[in-house]
Amino acid sequence: MAEFDPTTHPHRRLNPLTGERVLVSPHRTKRPWLGQTEPPQPSDLPQYDPKCYLCPGNTRAGGAKNDEYKQTMIFENDYAAVLPPPGPAAPAAPHPLLTTEPVQGGCDVLCFHPRHDLTLARLAVPDIERIIEEWSAIYNKRGNQEGIEYVQIFENKGAMMGCSNPHPHGQVWSLSDVPSLPATELANLKRYALQNAPSASAPKGPEGKACLLCEYAHFEVGVAESEGRVVVKNEHFVALVPWWAIWPFEIMLLPYARHIPSIADLTSEERSAFASILSQITKRYDNLFSCSFAYSMGIHQRPVPRKAADAADADAAHLHLHFDPPLLRNASVRKFLVGFELMAEPQRDLTPEQAASRLRACSEVHYLDTTEEAPKTAENPTSKDVDPTNS
Amino acid sequence: MAEFDPTTHPHRRLNPLTGERVLVSPHRTKRPWLGQTEPPQPSDLPQYDPKCYLCPGNTRAGGAKNDEYKQTMIFENDYAAVLPPPGPAAPAAPHPLLTTEPVQGGCDVLCFHPRHDLTLARLAVPDIERIIEEWSAIYNKRGNQEGIEYVQIFENKGAMMGCSNPHPHGQVWSLSDVPSLPATELANLKRYALQNAPSASAPKGPEGKACLLCEYAHFEVGVAESEGRVVVKNEHFVALVPWWAIWPFEIMLLPYARHIPSIADLTSEERSAFASILSQITKRYDNLFSCSFAYSMGIHQRPVPRKAADAADADAAHLHLHFDPPLLRNASVRKFLVGFELMAEPQRDLTPEQAASRLRACSEVHYLDTTEEAPKTAENPTSKDVDPTNS
Ligand SMILES: [Zn+2]
Ligand SMILES: [Zn+2]
Repeated sequence: MAEFDPTTHPHRRLNPLTGERVLVSPHRTKRPWLGQTEPPQPSDLPQYDPKCYLCPGNTRAGGAKNDEYKQTMIFENDYAAVLPPPGPAAPAAPHPLLTTEPVQGGCDVLCFHPRHDLTLARLAVPDIERIIEEWSAIYNKRGNQEGIEYVQIFENKGAMMGCSNPHPHGQVWSLSDVPSLPATELANLKRYALQNAPSASAPKGPEGKACLLCEYAHFEVGVAESEGRVVVKNEHFVALVPWWAIWPFEIMLLPYARHIPSIADLTSEERSAFASILSQITKRYDNLFSCSFAYSMGIHQRPVPRKAADAADADAAHLHLHFDPPLLRNASVRKFLVGFELMAEPQRDLTPEQAASRLRACSEVHYLDTTEEAPKTAENPTSKDVDPTNS
Repeated sequence: MAEFDPTTHPHRRLNPLTGERVLVSPHRTKRPWLGQTEPPQPSDLPQYDPKCYLCPGNTRAGGAKNDEYKQTMIFENDYAAVLPPPGPAAPAAPHPLLTTEPVQGGCDVLCFHPRHDLTLARLAVPDIERIIEEWSAIYNKRGNQEGIEYVQIFENKGAMMGCSNPHPHGQVWSLSDVPSLPATELANLKRYALQNAPSASAPKGPEGKACLLCEYAHFEVGVAESEGRVVVKNEHFVALVPWWAIWPFEIMLLPYARHIPSIADLTSEERSAFASILSQITKRYDNLFSCSFAYSMGIHQRPVPRKAADAADADAAHLHLHFDPPLLRNASVRKFLVGFELMAEPQRDLTPEQAASRLRACSEVHYLDTTEEAPKTAENPTSKDVDPTNS
């Protein structure tokens, strides 16, 4: 029988952070697209939109008026998913299978920039550094509030992700408990530290123990670029399409040179490197299909900042960002997580290695910033790197 | 402090089948809708579409020609996600965190009916019974093939679920391993049987042990209808919005009068009851927003039919169907599982109890089958049952 070929033979890959698998069907990338297509994204946004509830000076749905902000703006969500503590105690369960856990917290909205039309991909690196400083500040503020045990920073971008306002912004939900997915990831990071000896060359987690993500990132940056999953890296951070990626062009962004539990632990040099690579990957995303690339992004890290009374074991968390973008073949053909994927297991056709190769071939000059006169060929994908069956 | 009120206070509910939680934010149902809206579904489909690759006598993308079928038609998917066994052995992992498991199997497509325009909601009950017989036949056939350890029957319906062909059809993926979600559910059913004593009144699982779903369904059918989660039931099956539902109008459909591991174990009377309730819930779904209601549906059951050499513990599986429909407020406003939900935990505003009440208020006469002359009021939702903030 033929030898196993990961670009031909269907297989499953394990996500060690969640314990879940993804079904990879690489032979299927040639099938014709028979699914729904998406409408094109608007590409000529104004710098200021009088009807946008996030633009400076405008009035929000809840009635409050925005500052004439010049950099970033943060405010509490007028329709928060959780309410501030304290809340009433849990009711008695009518049956042991029907349990209720009350949850409290707060939801904040962070506007990245006053300009209505500038996403992360089009902001200058110092503007992105300012956003990271705001993330650190809100993580520290909310994470130190009485009763808050988890802070989730995330960005939901693009109409196909249900977000109809293109004004660049993210959200921060702070909760009295750790949600399902980050709780599972943290449990697996802790289990890995207990069950595995650290490798000689990778950075180590707390108390010299093995860190799953230190080990994983260290391995990935060592793979020959042409066959690996690394999209781009700098001295401190690496962006890669993880071995177990579900979304076609999913990226995990994480520090690989030392174990860093949270954004509050970044040095100023690391913060600059973080801002710089955020700019690089969002530009590559937009350039992949010459559109404003939709995604959900989330920061996973230590549930809340370190406090004196804390158990040290939450330091097993390793700061990382997930980018989950739905686009698959072009600006109007997306992946749907439905059918078999909702009922059984996520599935992908394009391999993570093929996706990384496509993203490596993208320019870091934003397509809207290139002029007809500028030489394009040097930075643009070459036919060698692009799989034509997926274009 | 006020007493806990599940229609006001944010809380989390545990899904005992998966071990995951859902965040319920019932106070938030009043927020204005600022998200993306969906285009209307076509409502005037022809009975036969010469361009449809599933209509009788037409040619499929792979080149094969469909029979002039009169009832159902089954064929192997021309672009299957998995390939038939045997396949090559697993390669060596380049790192313990990067494991590969080869997978084999087959993918079938089942056309429910020759008519291009008739979904489950518009088929006669005997036509639905015939579909159930086809499901049983393919479950037996595929599940008894060498190397097949799991059979997933599912239907993906509607353009907003990525399915552009409205011709009524479902799929069956048969695999050499049990996928992540059903594996987790089966493990939790087995654990429940080991750790819990059966209640006196509920049906029992294999060897007289407790079955999580027998216990749960038995509890739900005993709750007063006006405050419960049951949408509709008959002598053998109950359709309910589960306590832990993620999708706004999610339904779990399952037998509650005895423990039934798979569709192969149904008596003919139970099969008729199954067809009848499938008709009832799909009609209610279409009537909820007067549109062809999009959803993903999947059958969870014993991984494959019982064989002599099998361990009996797979009989801990309890046949159930999941319906995951995305529509939220009307025919064009859907829920997106993005942002916080992708990064942290699923979240809902409308409570499962409110959703069940809305579905109970729907007619079982399909809206396309009512005429202007017919009296509508008796069967239509009354203002009492409808939460106007969600309409
Ligand atoms: Zn993570
Ligand atoms: Zn299930």
